[in-house]
Amino acid sequence: MASFDLMRRLAKKQGGKIVMLVMDGLGGLPLEVDGLTELEEATTPNLDRLAREGSNGLTIPIARGIEPGSGPAHLALFGYDPLVYDIGRGVLEAIGIGMEVGPDDIAARGNFCTVDDNGLITDRRAGRIPTEQAAEVVDALRDIRLPGVELTIQEVKEHRFALRLRGKGLSSQILDTDPQVVGAAPLPAQVSANTTEAQHTAGLVNQFIEQARERLKNQRPANMLTLRGFSGDPALPQFQDVYKLKAACVAVYPMYKGVSRLVGMDVIETDPHDEPLDEFNHIAEAWDDYDFFFCHIKYTDSRGEDGSFDAKTAVIEQVDAALPALLDLQPDVLVITGDHSTPARLKSHSWHPVPALIWAPATHMPDRVTGFGERECMTGALGQFPAAELMVLALAHARRLDRYGA
Amino acid sequence: MASFDLMRRLAKKQGGKIVMLVMDGLGGLPLEVDGLTELEEATTPNLDRLAREGSNGLTIPIARGIEPGSGPAHLALFGYDPLVYDIGRGVLEAIGIGMEVGPDDIAARGNFCTVDDNGLITDRRAGRIPTEQAAEVVDALRDIRLPGVELTIQEVKEHRFALRLRGKGLSSQILDTDPQVVGAAPLPAQVSANTTEAQHTAGLVNQFIEQARERLKNQRPANMLTLRGFSGDPALPQFQDVYKLKAACVAVYPMYKGVSRLVGMDVIETDPHDEPLDEFNHIAEAWDDYDFFFCHIKYTDSRGEDGSFDAKTAVIEQVDAALPALLDLQPDVLVITGDHSTPARLKSHSWHPVPALIWAPATHMPDRVTGFGERECMTGALGQFPAAELMVLALAHARRLDRYGA
Repeated sequence: MASFDLMRRLAKKQGGKIVMLVMDGLGGLPLEVDGLTELEEATTPNLDRLAREGSNGLTIPIARGIEPGSGPAHLALFGYDPLVYDIGRGVLEAIGIGMEVGPDDIAARGNFCTVDDNGLITDRRAGRIPTEQAAEVVDALRDIRLPGVELTIQEVKEHRFALRLRGKGLSSQILDTDPQVVGAAPLPAQVSANTTEAQHTAGLVNQFIEQARERLKNQRPANMLTLRGFSGDPALPQFQDVYKLKAACVAVYPMYKGVSRLVGMDVIETDPHDEPLDEFNHIAEAWDDYDFFFCHIKYTDSRGEDGSFDAKTAVIEQVDAALPALLDLQPDVLVITGDHSTPARLKSHSWHPVPALIWAPATHMPDRVTGFGERECMTGALGQFPAAELMVLALAHARRLDRYGA
Repeated sequence: MASFDLMRRLAKKQGGKIVMLVMDGLGGLPLEVDGLTELEEATTPNLDRLAREGSNGLTIPIARGIEPGSGPAHLALFGYDPLVYDIGRGVLEAIGIGMEVGPDDIAARGNFCTVDDNGLITDRRAGRIPTEQAAEVVDALRDIRLPGVELTIQEVKEHRFALRLRGKGLSSQILDTDPQVVGAAPLPAQVSANTTEAQHTAGLVNQFIEQARERLKNQRPANMLTLRGFSGDPALPQFQDVYKLKAACVAVYPMYKGVSRLVGMDVIETDPHDEPLDEFNHIAEAWDDYDFFFCHIKYTDSRGEDGSFDAKTAVIEQVDAALPALLDLQPDVLVITGDHSTPARLKSHSWHPVPALIWAPATHMPDRVTGFGERECMTGALGQFPAAELMVLALAHARRLDRYGA
């Protein structure tokens, strides 16, 4: 595939406007033999017209057969080979709740757990306490102070929390403290590389653990914690640098805003209750300020995870009904796809290739696809291809790439 | 993709005869919604029969979304990954006018420009003087002599010329002398690597520049020159070595002859006014002497660049009408494709995948394609694949590759 060095060399500052509309977990499966998928079942006159006029295909998010997490799946859509570029687990957890992670920051995922009188773990998830209860436990830790670093801690969901250390000279080369079994004690923070920065950071983390142990000892069941996935700013190549794009993100969930920030997009303010039409209206308001808009629709994935075939279909129909507001903006290039498949039938992300269409009236190659759906896309002009190549195609259709060689 | 090491190991001296017919810029786009492409519009009974009987697909010349230059696009057709193998700009300019570039040669692209009394550039292209006028300016430079090297200079088009230095111990590690802006003086030749050879070469180039300055000072508007794209023989792996093929090129334009020479093909003499049938007759005359023929048709691309949909269609029809002369030779493998797309609609090369067919009656896998065209090829046996893999397929169909492993 085209490398970022090549993109830096070929990308032009001028060209058309691109909208990438991502319906999370768009791809699906039929519930029964001869059945239709969620997308095939949905009544989508606008998507069908775009598919009929434009180029269609199927994207492979990570690699054939690999079920994608949301982080790598979005990196791929943004043109980053997810097997090369990596956002650490701690950073993903942090940005997932809107905690920004910058160059001076180290983030980790935390679990509250239960230990017995000997300090041995009896429940690695503290009985999956409700999020509200975890928030109270977190409150008990907020006044922990560490020398020279700013500490931020916040509940995520149930027994999970995110921890961020901000300061100079920190390292993410710290091993997990979770022993992964019951009957063992949480481990102290230890280094995975013997550097001054790692030793210094491990020392700070151990001070945090000791102060937390003291504060939690009378709590039940969350009387201890473990930490995993220490990671720092992945320092990803920036959209402005590699693609020469001024890019904006319109998303409702923090995690997608976070990934967008990591690649250098501006994040447009949204309301947690925004519906697809509201999101498209946010794009309209910022239309003149950006070359590229990433628009994220969450609930296709959520209803897929729920196993609600009909509810997922309804979300797709809601997006379709709102589409004219996006089309009224007359984008030069409109890319519509998902980050991965979430078939209601599987109640889970899956590895199945994801329907994708590129509609760019000045440059697209029409195919014989008659509507937007998995099986129609199998016959399309784009074929099956790595999701990480979609950005290059979007730039090409926007006439934003110089010729390679003479 | 299969590497040259693998080709060296598997390629056999015996096997069928291969013809690769390349219609430059073959791929196109419809002019309007529901329209046909140039190739789909053309009446091509012979191509349609070959497509119906053989295997079809679409090639990706460089990488998805990347608009190919002619040099890299042809390297790909010859099996060289164009992101790995590179022909320098100076060499491309030189071979484009039939100037051969060998192991002792350094080539550069030159521009005549206009400078003011202070030596500052006022026009980087000397008013785009007509080629005939540039030829006279070039004549004024022909008697420049440099110690130990043979100098060749020739006009290209308008203000452009090609320069070749031939001698021992030269280096192409010389920076452009074009400052890329008006109001600045042309730069002296400087090295991009501090080696004896580069310093020696820069010294020679600066002697050339000073003598040229003297000879041009009373010319108007071309009273100075700049040099770019210093490059040497790319030392490409040779057809005879990697494929064990005795190969010949039949082309009308110098550039395609030049690239063929660089990969080790013999270049068969042609007339600049040769039509497709004449080119096929050249192949017939040399039929017994070669295993592989590359035949290049230029005008599909030229008419696409002109934006002349109907004229491009007419060139395709002309090729189709001449095809029986090629088929009469009974090639074992006939590959028909383009080096890239040049849709009349875009008046430019484009990144769109290129229709390709392999007709090899003894070995081809028929598909359900009913005629040769972009949308038919989308459904074919070959799928979409990198153009650089086409040579391996051609060798396979000619039974010229040993089995890999037992």
